[in-house]
Amino acid sequence: MAASKAQSFLITGANRGLGLEMVKQLVESRASTCRLFAACRDPDAPKSQALQDLAKKYPKVITVIQLDTTDPRSMKEAAMKVGAKLEGGGLNVLVNNAGVLPRGDLLHTSEQEFQMSMDTNLMGPVRVTKEFLPYLLQASKASTQPGMSWSKAAVINISALLASIKLVPETYIAHPAISYRISKTALNMFNQCAAFEFTKDGILFAAIHPGWVRTDMGGPNGEIDVVESVQGLLKVMGSLTEKENGAFLDYHGKPLPW
Amino acid sequence: MAASKAQSFLITGANRGLGLEMVKQLVESRASTCRLFAACRDPDAPKSQALQDLAKKYPKVITVIQLDTTDPRSMKEAAMKVGAKLEGGGLNVLVNNAGVLPRGDLLHTSEQEFQMSMDTNLMGPVRVTKEFLPYLLQASKASTQPGMSWSKAAVINISALLASIKLVPETYIAHPAISYRISKTALNMFNQCAAFEFTKDGILFAAIHPGWVRTDMGGPNGEIDVVESVQGLLKVMGSLTEKENGAFLDYHGKPLPW
Repeated sequence: MAASKAQSFLITGANRGLGLEMVKQLVESRASTCRLFAACRDPDAPKSQALQDLAKKYPKVITVIQLDTTDPRSMKEAAMKVGAKLEGGGLNVLVNNAGVLPRGDLLHTSEQEFQMSMDTNLMGPVRVTKEFLPYLLQASKASTQPGMSWSKAAVINISALLASIKLVPETYIAHPAISYRISKTALNMFNQCAAFEFTKDGILFAAIHPGWVRTDMGGPNGEIDVVESVQGLLKVMGSLTEKENGAFLDYHGKPLPW
Repeated sequence: MAASKAQSFLITGANRGLGLEMVKQLVESRASTCRLFAACRDPDAPKSQALQDLAKKYPKVITVIQLDTTDPRSMKEAAMKVGAKLEGGGLNVLVNNAGVLPRGDLLHTSEQEFQMSMDTNLMGPVRVTKEFLPYLLQASKASTQPGMSWSKAAVINISALLASIKLVPETYIAHPAISYRISKTALNMFNQCAAFEFTKDGILFAAIHPGWVRTDMGGPNGEIDVVESVQGLLKVMGSLTEKENGAFLDYHGKPLPW
């Protein structure tokens, strides 16, 4: 990435957990070389206060964006707002991070929970990727770098170990979360398909498992804290090349089985 | 299976293609030892005429059932109707066959097509499995056979080679069908999770790729005809044991990569 051009990020679910920590680590480590669009559903709600405080501290770097991926109008408005601020430079990195985690098995998961999981964890990323694709293409075209990387154009889908179909026998009884699993497996397939559809356009796709993190979503029994998870995620994201296009990796960069 | 007890099947999407052929081959090869519930959305529509004709020929074996998996009331009514006819004997085999196939890539697949794929190919099987689970449990409990098999209790999810995440690099450009793929990958994950959730209850789950079949869905360029596909499917279904619980197989019984 040329020093003169800031690397631009759009991060969904940026008001807490992994998303908020990602904004924090990015702005603290590279405030002068990045541009962050921190998207969340309710920027004015109390649960978004920490993000708003961070944005106030770095007003030239962070723009808080209202984005509800289930609302087409909110999507369009967010894309227009981001587009205007990008001034033709394109979007380098889209992080589809927003997600929900119903924990039940089949017998204890309602139709509504299935719909919520699919809508937020799968269709959210599908819609956001489609909506912001023109800006990703713009960034890819504007880049003079060979190959693929996050400094050119990349979509990072926050996936989960529980999405691994192969690992179900080892993990299902302790952590059923059937609607979450199905939606994240579906996200992995979306990631893989999109990787091949947009190879010609130079947009990299990767699905990354952030670890079992002690966040509101992961709960207090998580194995790592959010700082360690995001440090790993950002390191992996920064190391991605065309060889990892479509891959399913953990936050150490280790490939996971489908 | 004891000769005195008919093996009971519920097949969705039974009015044409694979579903209709499955009803046909089952009734023609074992009319005296099976009981078939042939479910479809519009039993009275012209496209269901072939099924109705077949049912008229074998009135003691085939019961045509109205079943719209997107309509909770239709689901309940179908379950009650099937339950009454089963007379406490339980349902041995549920075949989740109904499906749709939008063919576009990400850029050429609408929100509506995504929703239709997920609703029919994933949520349909989820809902039908949950709704008919009491009858599957009944059949499993009533069986004195060891292990797992379709003569005890089994759910067969008709999947697709295109659902394989691993094989996307080889198949995506020729056959994108992104919403179909994602929904069938999601179905594979549902199949695998349910297999582990209901192992203790003796209900077998398997996801089977029927081949690329020359049906309305597969189109005229399919590699095999519907007769060959269903011959293979039934042979595989009949050979399943607890070893294949949760498996993803083709219509020759060959395991496919996730």
